[in-house]
Amino acid sequence: MKKDFLYNEIAGNIAEKIKAGVLKAGDRLPSVRMLSQEQGISINTAKRIFLELESQSLVHAKPQSGYFVSPLNYLKLPLPEVSQPIPVANNREPDELMNVVYSTMGRRDLTLFSIGVPSGNLLPLAKLKKEIVLATRELEEGGTEYEPIQGNMKLRRMVAARSLAWKGNLKESDIITTNGCMNALVLCLMALTKPGDTIALESPCYPGILQLAVSLGLKVLEIATHPVTGIDMDALKKLLPKINVCLLVPNFNTPLGYCMPDASKKEVVTLLAEYNIPLIEDDTYGDIHFGPERPKCCKSYDKGGNVLWCGSVSKTLAPGYRVGWVAPGKYKDKILKLKLIHSLSSTSVINEAVGNFLLTGKYEHHLRKLRRTLQENYQKTADAIAAYFPQGTKISRPQGGLALWMEFPKNIDTGELYNQALKKRISISPGRVFTLQDQYHNCMRVCIGLPWTDDLKQRLKEVGNMAKMM
Amino acid sequence: MKKDFLYNEIAGNIAEKIKAGVLKAGDRLPSVRMLSQEQGISINTAKRIFLELESQSLVHAKPQSGYFVSPLNYLKLPLPEVSQPIPVANNREPDELMNVVYSTMGRRDLTLFSIGVPSGNLLPLAKLKKEIVLATRELEEGGTEYEPIQGNMKLRRMVAARSLAWKGNLKESDIITTNGCMNALVLCLMALTKPGDTIALESPCYPGILQLAVSLGLKVLEIATHPVTGIDMDALKKLLPKINVCLLVPNFNTPLGYCMPDASKKEVVTLLAEYNIPLIEDDTYGDIHFGPERPKCCKSYDKGGNVLWCGSVSKTLAPGYRVGWVAPGKYKDKILKLKLIHSLSSTSVINEAVGNFLLTGKYEHHLRKLRRTLQENYQKTADAIAAYFPQGTKISRPQGGLALWMEFPKNIDTGELYNQALKKRISISPGRVFTLQDQYHNCMRVCIGLPWTDDLKQRLKEVGNMAKMM
Repeated sequence: MKKDFLYNEIAGNIAEKIKAGVLKAGDRLPSVRMLSQEQGISINTAKRIFLELESQSLVHAKPQSGYFVSPLNYLKLPLPEVSQPIPVANNREPDELMNVVYSTMGRRDLTLFSIGVPSGNLLPLAKLKKEIVLATRELEEGGTEYEPIQGNMKLRRMVAARSLAWKGNLKESDIITTNGCMNALVLCLMALTKPGDTIALESPCYPGILQLAVSLGLKVLEIATHPVTGIDMDALKKLLPKINVCLLVPNFNTPLGYCMPDASKKEVVTLLAEYNIPLIEDDTYGDIHFGPERPKCCKSYDKGGNVLWCGSVSKTLAPGYRVGWVAPGKYKDKILKLKLIHSLSSTSVINEAVGNFLLTGKYEHHLRKLRRTLQENYQKTADAIAAYFPQGTKISRPQGGLALWMEFPKNIDTGELYNQALKKRISISPGRVFTLQDQYHNCMRVCIGLPWTDDLKQRLKEVGNMAKMM
Repeated sequence: MKKDFLYNEIAGNIAEKIKAGVLKAGDRLPSVRMLSQEQGISINTAKRIFLELESQSLVHAKPQSGYFVSPLNYLKLPLPEVSQPIPVANNREPDELMNVVYSTMGRRDLTLFSIGVPSGNLLPLAKLKKEIVLATRELEEGGTEYEPIQGNMKLRRMVAARSLAWKGNLKESDIITTNGCMNALVLCLMALTKPGDTIALESPCYPGILQLAVSLGLKVLEIATHPVTGIDMDALKKLLPKINVCLLVPNFNTPLGYCMPDASKKEVVTLLAEYNIPLIEDDTYGDIHFGPERPKCCKSYDKGGNVLWCGSVSKTLAPGYRVGWVAPGKYKDKILKLKLIHSLSSTSVINEAVGNFLLTGKYEHHLRKLRRTLQENYQKTADAIAAYFPQGTKISRPQGGLALWMEFPKNIDTGELYNQALKKRISISPGRVFTLQDQYHNCMRVCIGLPWTDDLKQRLKEVGNMAKMM
């Protein structure tokens, strides 16, 4: 325990110095032996520290010479501005929003910087297939029967067990499975709202959530967010008297990739409980942290059952499986009734397969690899942006998840960039789709779930060149 | 073609004579040779006619003696009354309704006369497992990816191809897949209604549909139905000025099992189109016809795209797969958008597996067997009811599907019968859950999806005895 603490602290200190520019590109770091002596740690711990820093692309080894600080050009790029949505619900959903976001789904002829899921190359396909075959064999009646209403027992048990890592302390009886995380959000919103109610959402926000809110007849208030720490608590406080429900993605929110600090999570939970406003927490990215620690959730601070915590394996394992869940706190009966009415059951075979995948430790093993790959993808993507995009481009610093957010100078319209890129068979996500207001026209989201290759770098460069020409 | 016509006509004639009591239990039928000569048909056709009648439990063979008319005691039981719901929306959902209907779901310690799906013993489990294994192998990325938004291509193509049998003439582009039929109904109702709108439903009605309507804030008007021909057209006409949408289960409606005559289907489609009221048609039982012909649907008569035709494999193949679909006519864009927002995609692997199962002819082969088994189950169940239930019991004559409806003398309360039966580990569906009004207390639904055994007969006898004691 103490060793882990030291290890994290020392690695974190060095990383901070690199990111702050105290240690500069090309600087030589102390040797493993020297670090061990300086800090009073074992040789093995010192080695582990360098491996950790290397995996973050912060340092690189030169044979027979030791470790050197890597160039991190992207760190020179400024952060995007704190968002400034107007505090009025006006719901100006662009008609073509759906088309822009989803028309390219499943197209194999495009380079999809717009897609918010990990590419199949990053997934444990062979192991998953095996689990499915096993599930058809082991389930009664081959999985043709309805599941229990609350969902697959193994899956619920494992989701509960994993909640220990973020101090959720859930029990399997707290959890209801759903057809992916979006379906969990649908059930929560349908259980808690009626048309005409007002919802508070982060701005910028995942388009699917905006569309869902609009389709349920809700008025949407967008909350200002900081690109590193998430929602502006003062902005939220001003909205409180007007809202009926709040939906947040506190961990590695798409598009910005921020992680709300623990203190903010605690504060928001307390505030909303005071006002008796339910908090729907979408934690679907929580397991893909780039740092060593699984971040806590708002649910970690939920005492009265006012937080409905939602998750899925769609961003980590298999988007096409539609396996998700919700721990709805004191709203459990309502959600259970709605699930029963709307879908009766989840898909038995697939939920059993995922339950077993978690139970046998394969999920954690896979996550370790996935996190490392995504972090590397982020750094390579960010470096390419620093190299190829227009002067004045700002980018977010995701601490996990599958995307980063770019802000161009005001004259660059990413709606136009989307059209130009599509002609070259590249799909991007223009900023306007992440809001219901008249903003983010000069922003875009870039996803980091594609395997990094020279070709991908080249494609990103093409987008950069198009932006430069505008 | 001509041969098939003759065969159906002759078998039908004999069946009618038996059911009408012209031919009585124990009567000897002409020999195969005699029938062949009388009717001018081949020996083989004559043999086929007797086999058909035998499969319907109308006749039985005695070795060396020929065919004899079987006793059909249940045909002596009268039909239930035409239902008489009041033409006012009052939505008195009993609080315990959910519990009564669903609390016994998945309990293996009970004899479930309440369950509305075929038992696993009646399903092609081994073949389905093989399809799933194949689908994980053949799909790109092992089926971990999202499907196209409209759904699996093979499945849509096959659902379209099968629509030729009922003059639906659908194309794959007309069809959107869903997570089971209930999910299709959810999408249709959410796309077409807002809270406070009024829906017309058959009375008695499947409890899941009643609950769905209530949960969406709809007012429910129940339409009077005849136990053999379905909705009373005059009753519907009176409701027309008050309703925004109509949802019918015209083929083998649960609980009554009727099949609306073609003329009624045509009339209801024309009427609703005139009033511009969308018709949601739940055809999930349409493939389990006891007669030789697949019945037509309301959709068969839909010229302007006003009928949203919904189906699934939940009642024929695998309830736990959650595979369904809708052909939404002119409402396609609305439904597609809602599907995208609510669930993004169906479960890729399972939909591919079912698509292949249909494509390779295995589905049709399985259906032929399933229909025969269910029809036999119906006749054996009905015969047991005739033998063991109180004097004055009336039963419906399902022409397909998975259930029949019983009406007891007024003094028998099936809510109480439910409680008594549950103590003996038997689950039944009391009539009150099939309505939002104060009626059907002396009715119950009996499902015929369980394999018929002496033990099952004994259990049914127990329920009959309990009813007799009341």
